[in-house]
Amino acid sequence: MFAPRESVQFPRTASANRKANAANAATAATTVSGDPKATFDYAGFYEAELEKKHKDKSYRYFNNINRLAKEFPQAHGAKKEERVTVWCSNDYLGMGRNPEVLKEMHETLDEYGAGAGGTRNISGHNRHAIELEGSLAKLHAKEAALVFSSCYVANDATLATLGSKMPDCVILSDSLNHASMIQGIRHSGTRKIVFKHNNLEDLESKLASLPLHVPKIIAFESVYSMCGSIGPIEEICDLAEKYGALTFLDEVHAVGMYGPHGAGVAEHLDFEAHQQGRPQGTIMDRVDIITGTLGKAYGCVGGYIAGSAKLVDMIRSLAPGFIFTTSLPPATMAGARAAIEYQMEYKGDRRLQQLHTRAVKEALDARDIPVIPNPSHIIPILVGNAELAKQASDMLLNDYQIYVQSINYPTVPVGQERLRITPTPGHTKEYRDQLVDVIDEIWSKLNIKRTSDWAAEGGFIGVGEANAQPSQPLWTDEQLEIDHQVAKEIKASKPANGFMETLLERESRNAAQSVSAAA
Amino acid sequence: MFAPRESVQFPRTASANRKANAANAATAATTVSGDPKATFDYAGFYEAELEKKHKDKSYRYFNNINRLAKEFPQAHGAKKEERVTVWCSNDYLGMGRNPEVLKEMHETLDEYGAGAGGTRNISGHNRHAIELEGSLAKLHAKEAALVFSSCYVANDATLATLGSKMPDCVILSDSLNHASMIQGIRHSGTRKIVFKHNNLEDLESKLASLPLHVPKIIAFESVYSMCGSIGPIEEICDLAEKYGALTFLDEVHAVGMYGPHGAGVAEHLDFEAHQQGRPQGTIMDRVDIITGTLGKAYGCVGGYIAGSAKLVDMIRSLAPGFIFTTSLPPATMAGARAAIEYQMEYKGDRRLQQLHTRAVKEALDARDIPVIPNPSHIIPILVGNAELAKQASDMLLNDYQIYVQSINYPTVPVGQERLRITPTPGHTKEYRDQLVDVIDEIWSKLNIKRTSDWAAEGGFIGVGEANAQPSQPLWTDEQLEIDHQVAKEIKASKPANGFMETLLERESRNAAQSVSAAA
Repeated sequence: MFAPRESVQFPRTASANRKANAANAATAATTVSGDPKATFDYAGFYEAELEKKHKDKSYRYFNNINRLAKEFPQAHGAKKEERVTVWCSNDYLGMGRNPEVLKEMHETLDEYGAGAGGTRNISGHNRHAIELEGSLAKLHAKEAALVFSSCYVANDATLATLGSKMPDCVILSDSLNHASMIQGIRHSGTRKIVFKHNNLEDLESKLASLPLHVPKIIAFESVYSMCGSIGPIEEICDLAEKYGALTFLDEVHAVGMYGPHGAGVAEHLDFEAHQQGRPQGTIMDRVDIITGTLGKAYGCVGGYIAGSAKLVDMIRSLAPGFIFTTSLPPATMAGARAAIEYQMEYKGDRRLQQLHTRAVKEALDARDIPVIPNPSHIIPILVGNAELAKQASDMLLNDYQIYVQSINYPTVPVGQERLRITPTPGHTKEYRDQLVDVIDEIWSKLNIKRTSDWAAEGGFIGVGEANAQPSQPLWTDEQLEIDHQVAKEIKASKPANGFMETLLERESRNAAQSVSAAA
Repeated sequence: MFAPRESVQFPRTASANRKANAANAATAATTVSGDPKATFDYAGFYEAELEKKHKDKSYRYFNNINRLAKEFPQAHGAKKEERVTVWCSNDYLGMGRNPEVLKEMHETLDEYGAGAGGTRNISGHNRHAIELEGSLAKLHAKEAALVFSSCYVANDATLATLGSKMPDCVILSDSLNHASMIQGIRHSGTRKIVFKHNNLEDLESKLASLPLHVPKIIAFESVYSMCGSIGPIEEICDLAEKYGALTFLDEVHAVGMYGPHGAGVAEHLDFEAHQQGRPQGTIMDRVDIITGTLGKAYGCVGGYIAGSAKLVDMIRSLAPGFIFTTSLPPATMAGARAAIEYQMEYKGDRRLQQLHTRAVKEALDARDIPVIPNPSHIIPILVGNAELAKQASDMLLNDYQIYVQSINYPTVPVGQERLRITPTPGHTKEYRDQLVDVIDEIWSKLNIKRTSDWAAEGGFIGVGEANAQPSQPLWTDEQLEIDHQVAKEIKASKPANGFMETLLERESRNAAQSVSAAA
């Protein structure tokens, strides 16, 4: 059986906290005792902080998951012979095992070695950085791009720099923004105004309350990763122009996944124009700063910003988090660039990812499993209880060798705990069938609320709400090249295994036929 | 000829800053005009910030340097056929092209793919993270270690977390501390007290001014990378125990380079005890938190902290910069671990690095070139003028194909501009001879002050100071296994090419002989 829980390793004892122990021999809890001669009890403090995490159930146990390039989407656990199916990785397209990416990385490793050997200013600037930033600028149709260690660092460094440098800057931040943006805003030391998630009225009233001449940044995301909601990019651009604000758009969970070239949701919104190579005047063109990652759909690691040449040059020149850190390794940059260029040319992976997402959502819906509705590729299944969410995740892993991490506070609010599922092109029918069967079983075993249960209570965060608008996927049938006539036929036949599974089956049958016909 | 200067790439125009331009058509500089109807001029702001950098000569031009694994320490420039000798990389030991490191990375890439695919909590925790953190804990003889995207992030996240969580915490910070620590302290929002660089009296008076029970962190470095000075670790530990402070030691430029296992300066100070596997009670054992990098002497990328199990678990549980970011790729972690294990077993690289450092310092000294004296592997050559430093660096690259980045403000104070040279085991005699000849030539051409010139002015930051103590290298002759009798003979013979070059020549002759004898 798979041994799931493994905390951080403590391989060797050492003389820990001698200092505090010696000084505080008489007074175990200095800060409580109030003895002015006693020093601070550091070990006791660490322990107390950890105890808090255990108490509120937010202490995290890491699972040892080793994703296997040749058996995607499978992994091995602590033991090499165990197999687990991974259903929660952000390597959404399986680019981490893409042969072109790996080939590029192998070659670059051999030619240029393991590491960059310095900061960008001191011996760590090279053709890989230049080419990667060139590809990123091209991808987003911006003048320039800048690569960071991660998008956490990109968001943090860019917002902190802009917010601290522009006089009296105000940053308007969506209430569901990622921790990296929250940190960047905090680090800027400037004024922050939080607006309600995706709420344009609230945003506008807050923008209108500020003097026109004051510099403002609207910081938001395209795909919010824990609920799958999508930001109203066009409308935010409208407001930004009306009130003279900069737009700062985090496309971390969208790059590689949306748009004809994989540039993200902003590109997707003008699908045709970008397909035809006309970025001018599009929504993406109107966004001032786009940030993204190389570590999710592009399968590598690292983050970036894209924007005007002057903006990028200023961040390059001023942000300590960019300046004072070692460059990404040449092979990482080369691999990421290969992934970007691959996805710019080929839509098949993200199309299949969307089809698989639809199929899983449809199948879960048919079993009355509560998926928080959203138009994206994320499948958040509402559990609504920290203990139950962890139990469900543990049971999936231990009893069924399916890995879906439970998402608890502080990543989501208390009471909104969930399982977050991310299908990939590699999650073929047998994986999907197994997942849906097992979740159904666990929902019964643990007596977790189903959609109808939530509905009976009047609904919650979109689940089981009577008057909720059905969530239309961002990728339309047309963009997914679903044949209208075929779809009509399948729907009319009311197939037992559902519309999407039947469609996918027919598609793979056709593909097999055209292969055999060609042979 | 080598084309040296290449700024960031701006590959594609877009409709930049339409917003500000449209809104501010009438008022070019809004913030100056004071028109309350005008919006902020973002593009003008970026431009003004860049203009400031140009004006104070701190604007940075990146050099396109592509370090070649098979021709170490050579690189190619913008053109693949050009060759440059790199003399300023932080891949101090050439581990970036070490065959064992590369083999491990190739194998891991093939087996586990390009990226980790998630944060440590969500599918990004794996055997590579566990094993790397195990090796790091073992290296520093601590209970635990934690890996971050970079040591910039490790320092920032750890200091910010400790400083913000411990009630009324005070952080005492060496005046030459790295930007990452300065940021971490700022981000903690807690009280900071700067003490004079390596000045124990100043540190003690500041510690003594604080109540004993208040939590305190002394943040300092072992090797200060821009001047090569070394922190008084043992004495700071004494003060920390006396005043009940935590010690936070950045060994970024020392790991892999000092000590019998490459654990850094703290290990080096008890060379014998660690050689014999007795870490208990040593100086390294007394340091509470050690931070290091995988991106310099270990040739890869990433950073870490090592300390007690509880401390590490607390940082793991609380630091957003750790929690909310994608794990390093499996191949990066595997490669870094191979490098660490290699250097734990083998002292030859760091020994040779030290011998080459001594040889270059000695040869420069013989030419009256002003090396800022220090006991480490860094060779900072004082120029004392921003323009001249950049000219010297440009001339080295353009006319002699030698890459040494000039170090200007804000990395060093105005008036202390320098060239920072970092020898490696790969910088053999012909490279060293060329470097010294060329620098001598450039010093004459550009009329840069020599040691004797500085001496005539009474000396400056250790250069040409009459009563300065000679700086003893941290690696002693004994630790470098320099035969006392041989050294005496060479010194007596007063060789024309200097003591160190003669010693190195004799060593390589002996090595060649023993090879031919064995054949």
